[in-house]
Amino acid sequence: MIRFADRASLLAALDNLPAPCAVSTGAARARQAELTKPPGSLGRLEDIAVFMAGWQGTAVPRLHHVRGAVFAGNHGIAQQGVSAFPPEVTRQMVDNFMAGGAAINVLARCCEAQLSIVPLDLDRPTGDIAQEPAMSDAECLKALNAGAAVLTPETQLLFVGEMGIGNTTPAAALAAAAFGGDGNQWCGYGTGVGPDGLARKIKAVDRALALHHEHCTDPFETLRRLGGREIAAMAGAILAARLHRIPVLLDGFIASAAIAPFTARQPRFADHCIAAHCSAEAAHQILLERLGLQPLLRLGLRLGEGSGAALAVPIIRAAIATHGAMATFAEAKVARS
Amino acid sequence: MIRFADRASLLAALDNLPAPCAVSTGAARARQAELTKPPGSLGRLEDIAVFMAGWQGTAVPRLHHVRGAVFAGNHGIAQQGVSAFPPEVTRQMVDNFMAGGAAINVLARCCEAQLSIVPLDLDRPTGDIAQEPAMSDAECLKALNAGAAVLTPETQLLFVGEMGIGNTTPAAALAAAAFGGDGNQWCGYGTGVGPDGLARKIKAVDRALALHHEHCTDPFETLRRLGGREIAAMAGAILAARLHRIPVLLDGFIASAAIAPFTARQPRFADHCIAAHCSAEAAHQILLERLGLQPLLRLGLRLGEGSGAALAVPIIRAAIATHGAMATFAEAKVARS
Repeated sequence: MIRFADRASLLAALDNLPAPCAVSTGAARARQAELTKPPGSLGRLEDIAVFMAGWQGTAVPRLHHVRGAVFAGNHGIAQQGVSAFPPEVTRQMVDNFMAGGAAINVLARCCEAQLSIVPLDLDRPTGDIAQEPAMSDAECLKALNAGAAVLTPETQLLFVGEMGIGNTTPAAALAAAAFGGDGNQWCGYGTGVGPDGLARKIKAVDRALALHHEHCTDPFETLRRLGGREIAAMAGAILAARLHRIPVLLDGFIASAAIAPFTARQPRFADHCIAAHCSAEAAHQILLERLGLQPLLRLGLRLGEGSGAALAVPIIRAAIATHGAMATFAEAKVARS
Repeated sequence: MIRFADRASLLAALDNLPAPCAVSTGAARARQAELTKPPGSLGRLEDIAVFMAGWQGTAVPRLHHVRGAVFAGNHGIAQQGVSAFPPEVTRQMVDNFMAGGAAINVLARCCEAQLSIVPLDLDRPTGDIAQEPAMSDAECLKALNAGAAVLTPETQLLFVGEMGIGNTTPAAALAAAAFGGDGNQWCGYGTGVGPDGLARKIKAVDRALALHHEHCTDPFETLRRLGGREIAAMAGAILAARLHRIPVLLDGFIASAAIAPFTARQPRFADHCIAAHCSAEAAHQILLERLGLQPLLRLGLRLGEGSGAALAVPIIRAAIATHGAMATFAEAKVARS
């Protein structure tokens, strides 16, 4: 599977993204019109089936192997009181993931996804982005490749999630660097910080933007300066998926922010992504619009971990199952309109 | 299981609806607060778990047996060109259901629901509601009981769907009779009728209302005059579920209209229902608001058959699974905020 050798090869990959197979897309649309239902009556399920057909390069796509990955990282900025939880919770939750007791463990079992848990140097928080770059070149590349490494040859659908106390703050900074705006526009209450915490987040983002924005001349640099290890890992996984033509179910605000730098450079970057949900984080809706995505679910989630993506997996399965297994008008001898 | 002896006993049941268990609801809320996630971060999943706890009368609800039922009926009004499909498609689609080739068959398999297919006197369409009552007292009672009969002692969650060419027209009439308004407010494009067909639907509904509305003095009479066999069966199933304290995943516009007469009499009637989705039928959103329900999904569906409800089953399963299987803060040794 793909490994990014250096910044230049990552940027080259980003500038040569594969597209879905138009022949398969057309064949899948034609098949939808033959199935025993009024045309268009399965709504987004029809679009999903056609989307999966295009990326799999076949008129009748399949979905056996769903890969989920949860990346965890610690953040220097967490020391500034930007989260409702203390930084040690990152490791405690990784232990919980390993023991199978977290929401994402239960949800991955529900949707029959294979789940990887990938803690990233938890004992070395990133630099405080309000004062210095989050990572060195080497650290950022390592994190991107840790993401790419979760893909296996049999993966047919990927979702990625995260755990990292304080990480809605770098996520907001990434969104602002990619799409404009400031801390006030992109910061929200995260996992439940109070108004004072929100004010600290906004201030931290604005400071980080003032310090780094002029240096963010490519997506690697933006991720390195304003991101975090688990955020870069998500970005690496989602980019690697694109290069392998593997569709991605995009989780919440932080997963969406992780690919904002790529989308700022390549407006069609998220074409292989389906937004699983719109979270309760206020800026997520705007971020999804900037990525060109319409969410499948709106369930008021604000947990992360990939939880919203896991909840959307059964919808993808249902779309593929109806597309592949429904009878046609001719087979069932049903009259057309 | 419950059988309605006559109109009076049905109305008596409607006036004595059981409520969820407040003790179990409270215990479930308390459990949610102990699970390893920020409070409230699973959004509607938390509400669903608490809802299921209340109706099952236990702090930790289970979901093994999901029952789906598709009722089919034919409508005299279908002769007036109110549908994009000819009336014989009702029987053809029932054959398709029996053979396992329709969308609902595939979706029921996806969500592991047991599916009943219940055709109701397809060779005897109901009366044309623009000219006469849809059903006699005996016919309406029989249809209500055909609905109630799909419940089994092990059923833990019910969804009902329908097939009946022309049935968005009586559904619009039922919504108007229950909540006010006219054909123009409640009629939409159904499975894909054109503008002329829509005009015929509106006219038919307005005629039916003019003829019957003053006689619709109780929900039984409303269903009998303006409904249809599959619509009364859905109403009977959903009422019987309430009497057995079995929660219901409510499907689209027609399923929602089926319980509009009950809700007009008992504003809390739909308390045991979760609206699975909001369909593409324009008036469905308004109808759900009148029923006091917020939809889980918005996928642009307009198929019926129970398809939207089946798609929501995995979300209910996920809510119950996270509620029951996640570790608590104490168990996982995770610090609280």
